[in-house]
Amino acid sequence: MKDIKTYIEANKERFLNELFELIRIPSISAESEHKEDMVRCANKWKELLLAAGADKAEVMPTDGNPVVYGEKTIDPSKPTVLVYGHYDVMPVAPLDLWRTDPFEPVVKDGKIWARGADDDKGQSFMQAKAFEFMVKTNQLPCNVKFMLEGEEEIGSGSLYGFCEKNKALLKADTILVCDTSMIARDVPSITSGLRGLCYWEVEVTGANHDLHSGIYGGAVANPINVLCKMIADLHDADGHITIPGFYDDVLVISDEERALMAQAPFDLEKYKKELDIKEVRGEKGYSTKERTGIRPCLDVCGIWGGHTGEGSKTVLPSKAFAKISTRLVANQDYEKISKMFKDYFEAAAPDYVTVKVTPCHGGAAYVAPLDLAAYKAAEKAMETVYGKRPIPTRSGGSIPIVAGFEKILGIKSILMGFGLGSDDIHAPNENYPLEQFFNGIETIPYFYENFAKMSETIA
Amino acid sequence: MKDIKTYIEANKERFLNELFELIRIPSISAESEHKEDMVRCANKWKELLLAAGADKAEVMPTDGNPVVYGEKTIDPSKPTVLVYGHYDVMPVAPLDLWRTDPFEPVVKDGKIWARGADDDKGQSFMQAKAFEFMVKTNQLPCNVKFMLEGEEEIGSGSLYGFCEKNKALLKADTILVCDTSMIARDVPSITSGLRGLCYWEVEVTGANHDLHSGIYGGAVANPINVLCKMIADLHDADGHITIPGFYDDVLVISDEERALMAQAPFDLEKYKKELDIKEVRGEKGYSTKERTGIRPCLDVCGIWGGHTGEGSKTVLPSKAFAKISTRLVANQDYEKISKMFKDYFEAAAPDYVTVKVTPCHGGAAYVAPLDLAAYKAAEKAMETVYGKRPIPTRSGGSIPIVAGFEKILGIKSILMGFGLGSDDIHAPNENYPLEQFFNGIETIPYFYENFAKMSETIA
Repeated sequence: MKDIKTYIEANKERFLNELFELIRIPSISAESEHKEDMVRCANKWKELLLAAGADKAEVMPTDGNPVVYGEKTIDPSKPTVLVYGHYDVMPVAPLDLWRTDPFEPVVKDGKIWARGADDDKGQSFMQAKAFEFMVKTNQLPCNVKFMLEGEEEIGSGSLYGFCEKNKALLKADTILVCDTSMIARDVPSITSGLRGLCYWEVEVTGANHDLHSGIYGGAVANPINVLCKMIADLHDADGHITIPGFYDDVLVISDEERALMAQAPFDLEKYKKELDIKEVRGEKGYSTKERTGIRPCLDVCGIWGGHTGEGSKTVLPSKAFAKISTRLVANQDYEKISKMFKDYFEAAAPDYVTVKVTPCHGGAAYVAPLDLAAYKAAEKAMETVYGKRPIPTRSGGSIPIVAGFEKILGIKSILMGFGLGSDDIHAPNENYPLEQFFNGIETIPYFYENFAKMSETIA
Repeated sequence: MKDIKTYIEANKERFLNELFELIRIPSISAESEHKEDMVRCANKWKELLLAAGADKAEVMPTDGNPVVYGEKTIDPSKPTVLVYGHYDVMPVAPLDLWRTDPFEPVVKDGKIWARGADDDKGQSFMQAKAFEFMVKTNQLPCNVKFMLEGEEEIGSGSLYGFCEKNKALLKADTILVCDTSMIARDVPSITSGLRGLCYWEVEVTGANHDLHSGIYGGAVANPINVLCKMIADLHDADGHITIPGFYDDVLVISDEERALMAQAPFDLEKYKKELDIKEVRGEKGYSTKERTGIRPCLDVCGIWGGHTGEGSKTVLPSKAFAKISTRLVANQDYEKISKMFKDYFEAAAPDYVTVKVTPCHGGAAYVAPLDLAAYKAAEKAMETVYGKRPIPTRSGGSIPIVAGFEKILGIKSILMGFGLGSDDIHAPNENYPLEQFFNGIETIPYFYENFAKMSETIA
C-alpha cells in the first residue's frame, strides 16, 4: 500500500476534526431521549462515506434505529469486504467521574478522551479513512460495503431483521469488524472468539406498598434483603454458578489448547495494580484469562430499591430490582439459558415475595477458525504494521450480532480491533490512543490487499 | 372539659385550613434543598402557637434546623406539660405512586391526604388546637410548654444538644407526644414502648473504576454481588441476625408478659391481605406482633449500584451501596450496636473488595411504666372519648429522642397517638382520618384535666 504513511501524516488533523464531529453527537441508544441524535449520527455517517468515496450511501430504516449502508464496486468479479461498525454509544453516567465532557472530545497525553472515542466511533471511523485512502490513491483491491448500526450497545435488536431482509444487498466474502482490543500497544492480537450474552431485569415485590421499617420491620419480608439472598445464592463458595444445567453445553477446552492460550503475555500483579484490587475473584480451577475467555460468568450490572437518596429514610420498601447478565461461551444457546434463568429465578422465590424476570437482549458466542483466509489476511496486515505476528485471543466481551451474521448471512467475521484494555470503554473517561487510531488506519488497507491476493489464489 | 365537642364542631373548617397551610410547606429534613422550608415551617408554628394563646413563642436556633418553643404559665405551683412534636416530614419519592400532590392536602373519603397529614403535622397540630380550646374557654388546668423540632425524621441530631443547653427552660412534669398510632379506630391504645434504632450507610468498592462486564466479568469481583452476599449473610435461615453478640443485651420477656401482650387483637389473615402478601417472614419462635414489639430486626432501607436507568448497560461497577438499619429493643445500647455492626461488616469484607461503613443516626429504645400518673391520665382521657380502656402496646417504630428526654431532662414521655396503621406514614399517599384528628383534639384536654387532678392528689 503505497504512500499510506504519507497520506495519514498529511491528513491527521482533518481525520481528527471529522471524528470529533461524529463524537459530538450523543448517540446513546439506551436512552430514548436521544432518538433524534441517532438519526443525526446516521446522517453524518452517510456524508462521511460519500466524502470518503462511496458510490452510494443511504440511511435505511429498521424497526428501531436506522442502519447506514454504503458501497463501492470496482469489479463484480473481485471479492467483497463488508465493513461492520456501530454508531451508537453507551450511557455516560456517573457523569461526575468524567474529567472532561464525554461529548466534547479532547486530545491529551496522546489520547482522545470522549464517549465513543474507541467504542466504536473511533474504531469504525478508521475503516472509513482507510477506505478513503485506497479510493483516493486508486489502490482499492476489493469491492466494499459498509453497514453501521445504531443498536449494538442495546443488543442489535433491529439488525437481525435488517440482515434477514437484505441478504442480497449484504452479500460479501468476509466481514471486517474493528470493535475489539489488542493485548497491549506492543502486543498485537486478533480476537478469535467472543462470549455470548444474556441479560435480564428482575423485580422482587414484598408488601403492596412501601412500609414504615419500624412498624413492620422484622415481621414482613424486605424485598431488598430477599433479592440479596437470591443473588448470593446464584454462586457457590467456589465461584461456580449454581443454576442447574447452566454449564451443560459448555465445550471443555483441551489441555493442549489451554496451554497455547496461556502463552499470551499476562501480568497478574500489573492487572491487579491497574484495577487497584488486592485479589482477583472468579471460578475456582481457572486462570484469570480463562475466566473471561473460555468460561461463562454471571454479574449484577445494576441494583436498586428503597431509599437511595440523601439522608436516612427508614423504609421497608415494596419492591427491589436488579439487572443481571451472564456471559456465555461457544456452544451455549443463549435462548435456552435465557429461559433457564427466568424459570429458575422465579421458582426460587420464597412464598413471602413474588419475583418477576424480564429477559432483555441476548446473543450467541462466536469463534473464528485460525486457518480462514480472511483471518490470515488480518494476521499478515498487523504483522506488517506492528512488526510482530498477532496472537489469537478469546475476548470476554460479546458482539452478539457477529454470531448472527454467521447464522443469517453465512459470513464469518474478522475481529481486528485496535483498542487497549486501558481505553475504559463503557466507563467514565473513555479514551483511545492516537497511536492506535493511526496504526489502525494504516493496517486496514493491508488487510484488503492480502485478502484480495489470497482470494485470487484460492479462485 | 365543658363544650369541647361544640368548640370543635364550630371551628372544624378553620382547623383544617390552618393545618393545610402547615402541610403546604415541604419541610423535608432529609433533603438539603428544603433548608429554607424548614425555617418557613418553624415560623408558621410560632404564629400558630401565639394565635392559640401562648404567652410567648419563638424560633430558637440549634446546630441544625431550628426548634419552635412556646409556653403559657397559669400558675407556677401547678404542674407543667411539655408538648413535643416535629414539623419536619419524610421525603416523598417515589412521586409517581402518589394519587394526589403530597404537599397540596385533599380531603377525600373522610381522610386528609398529604405528606405530614399524620406524621407529625396532623398529630402535633391537634395538640395546638386542644391547647387553644382550653385557653379560649378558660379551662387550662396546667402550665404548658411546646417544643417542636425539625429533625425527627433524620434522627433529632440537634435536639439532644438543645435539651442539654435548655434544661431549665424545658423543666416539666411530663411530656405529651402525639406521634404514634392506635391499634384500630375502635381499639384505642397507648404506646408503652418504642424500639431503638441504628442506621448505617455501607459502601463496597471493587476495581477503581467501572469495568466492561464482558472483558472483566468472571475475573474481577463485582461489588454488587459481594454486597448481596454480605447482606444475605446477616441473617440465618431462621431469620436470626448473625452478628456475634447482637442479642446479648436483649431483655427476655416473661411468659406472663408475652401472654398479656398476646391479648391485643390481631388478625394475621387481615394483616396479610392488607399488605397483599402470601406469607409473613420474621424471626423463628416469635409471633408477628412480638417480632415488631419485643424483638430487634435488621432491614436494608435502600440499595443501589451499577446501571439503574433505562436499558441494559453491561457494566461491572466499581461500587455498590446500601442503607441498612436495625430496630433495637429495651436494654440494647445503640452506640454499642452501632460500633458492633461497623466492626463486623468491615471485617467481613473478602479480600477482593474494600468495605466502608458510615454510622448515621441512632437512638435507644424506651419503655413507659403503666403505673405512671401521666400514663393513667392518658388512659382515662382516651376511655372518656373512645368509651374503652386503651390497650398498652409496644410499637416497632422508634422515636429515639424520647429515650433522650428521659436521659437528659429526666422526664418520662406519654405516647398518646391517634394514627392508624393504614395512614401510610413514610410512604406514598400518607393520610389521616378526620375522625382521628377530631377525636385527638377532644381527648387531649381530658389528659390535662386528669393529669392536673392526679398531680394534686399526689402533692
